[in-house]
Amino acid sequence: MSERLPAWRPGPTRDAVLAFLDRSQDIPVDERVAYVDNDGTLWCEKPTYVQQDFFVDALQRRVADDPSLAEHPAFAAVLSGDMAAIGAIGLAEVAGALAALFDGQTPEQYAGAVDDFLGRHRHRTLEVPVDRVIYRPMLELLAELRALEFSVGIVTGGGTEFVRRVSKRFYGVEPGMVVGTLIGYRFDRDDRGRPLVRRTIAQSGTANEGGAKLEHIQAQVGRAPVLAIGNSGGDRELLEWAQTSPHGGLAVLIVHDDADREFAYTSEAATFTDAEVITDVADRLGWTVVSMQRDWATIFVGAD
Amino acid sequence: MSERLPAWRPGPTRDAVLAFLDRSQDIPVDERVAYVDNDGTLWCEKPTYVQQDFFVDALQRRVADDPSLAEHPAFAAVLSGDMAAIGAIGLAEVAGALAALFDGQTPEQYAGAVDDFLGRHRHRTLEVPVDRVIYRPMLELLAELRALEFSVGIVTGGGTEFVRRVSKRFYGVEPGMVVGTLIGYRFDRDDRGRPLVRRTIAQSGTANEGGAKLEHIQAQVGRAPVLAIGNSGGDRELLEWAQTSPHGGLAVLIVHDDADREFAYTSEAATFTDAEVITDVADRLGWTVVSMQRDWATIFVGAD
Repeated sequence: MSERLPAWRPGPTRDAVLAFLDRSQDIPVDERVAYVDNDGTLWCEKPTYVQQDFFVDALQRRVADDPSLAEHPAFAAVLSGDMAAIGAIGLAEVAGALAALFDGQTPEQYAGAVDDFLGRHRHRTLEVPVDRVIYRPMLELLAELRALEFSVGIVTGGGTEFVRRVSKRFYGVEPGMVVGTLIGYRFDRDDRGRPLVRRTIAQSGTANEGGAKLEHIQAQVGRAPVLAIGNSGGDRELLEWAQTSPHGGLAVLIVHDDADREFAYTSEAATFTDAEVITDVADRLGWTVVSMQRDWATIFVGAD
Repeated sequence: MSERLPAWRPGPTRDAVLAFLDRSQDIPVDERVAYVDNDGTLWCEKPTYVQQDFFVDALQRRVADDPSLAEHPAFAAVLSGDMAAIGAIGLAEVAGALAALFDGQTPEQYAGAVDDFLGRHRHRTLEVPVDRVIYRPMLELLAELRALEFSVGIVTGGGTEFVRRVSKRFYGVEPGMVVGTLIGYRFDRDDRGRPLVRRTIAQSGTANEGGAKLEHIQAQVGRAPVLAIGNSGGDRELLEWAQTSPHGGLAVLIVHDDADREFAYTSEAATFTDAEVITDVADRLGWTVVSMQRDWATIFVGAD
């Protein structure tokens, strides 16, 4: 038993997770379903989301070809990292403008652009490749879940296809189990008449945050969770959903409180409802709270 | 080798399928992806779709409670089985009216209604339960694909949640690998404040036929096929897509030409494009054509 989850420090938090793993063997295999958030839950989301860095990188390359793009207000705000300007324009509007950069691409073309970026990218402050900003304790937990035949999905506010490029390689999660913010596709044929699909911003879905995470899980996977893990207000409804499981679901909240080894910040409780911080919600609803400082002996993969 | 696919008669068709299975061992496991249509490909779709029988059954029960429903033109057409009237009203309009019968239900409530129906239903002419109108040769092929670690999805014009009620139990296919016509969901809370989702017709998706099958596969699963099996014009683009696989994809068309043991009928080539029948398309594009009469020694599960 002491061999399991070695990057987790002994204590009530690890005990609660191990107790859940132990009793999950009594849950029917088809109902062993876990959903895990990505940014800030599986890998570092500060100082900027990895996908945000991808957009900035893509935009810089486009601007090099066509400098007039830099005058587009949304693009100017993104390039300068001006979060106030992005907020004033509206995140949905900015996201739409960025998505338009890839409009008409095939999934293969988009995947190539993401892979190329991920191969070059270094974390802004930690100065390591993206596969080094993954949380080692979470990889250990995913391995335990796989050993118990759990179906594990990544439920992210990030772009579905972006996260699919790392889901199997980094986390062992099948692309079909990545439930994120979805771009639309339109059927087309190439110049030899062969069928394909192209990205289209015309049918973009709702941002995958809050209650939308439940709607999109039901549509795409069709199974409710018995375990959910998140770190922000956008995960609140997902964590509450896991608690409604007839098998006694577990809701786990990762708290970023380790400024020395990672970042210290508090997420807003929820996007719309109230001003309660997420840890207050966790206490009130009986979630298992992971303090990165207290509960994780090691934070990152590759660290000692 | 002769032990495999025993319900398939020896001959060029079975040889082509077995040759594909043999060489698929050289395809990377992550790219062993097969999509199979449901109605008319995995189980019998004549004289009526099973889901159509479900709608009639549900409608009859509602009308027993509220006879005025029978006066709704779409419902009257469905109850009388008047296909000309259904066509005049428009299939999308009729489908929308039927979906509205379940508007607001939770997935659990809808699943309960489907399960209750499937437990009672008998095939209209064969007079057997629905699990007896499944094609035995297809179950054998699915077993071979599973043994080869294929990811197998069901890509159906039928309702996603309807087919999910049988996908694992009948075919060993995970609910997340059922790509069908999708109803929308809306987040809600019950009277104790617990989160849930409810069916809503407000966000219903495009019917999952033709090119839409590709769009929906990309969105939901994110993987292109190396094998596709279908039986109708609505599967045409899917079968063509499999043929574009860099691993040399196989497209298989099931032809219903056995009036004695099943039904004999010809599907239209495609929903929109031309008047070519589907077998002409198959010949032109080099699909593997399965004649149920010639190639299947046994048709149904449970038959001798």
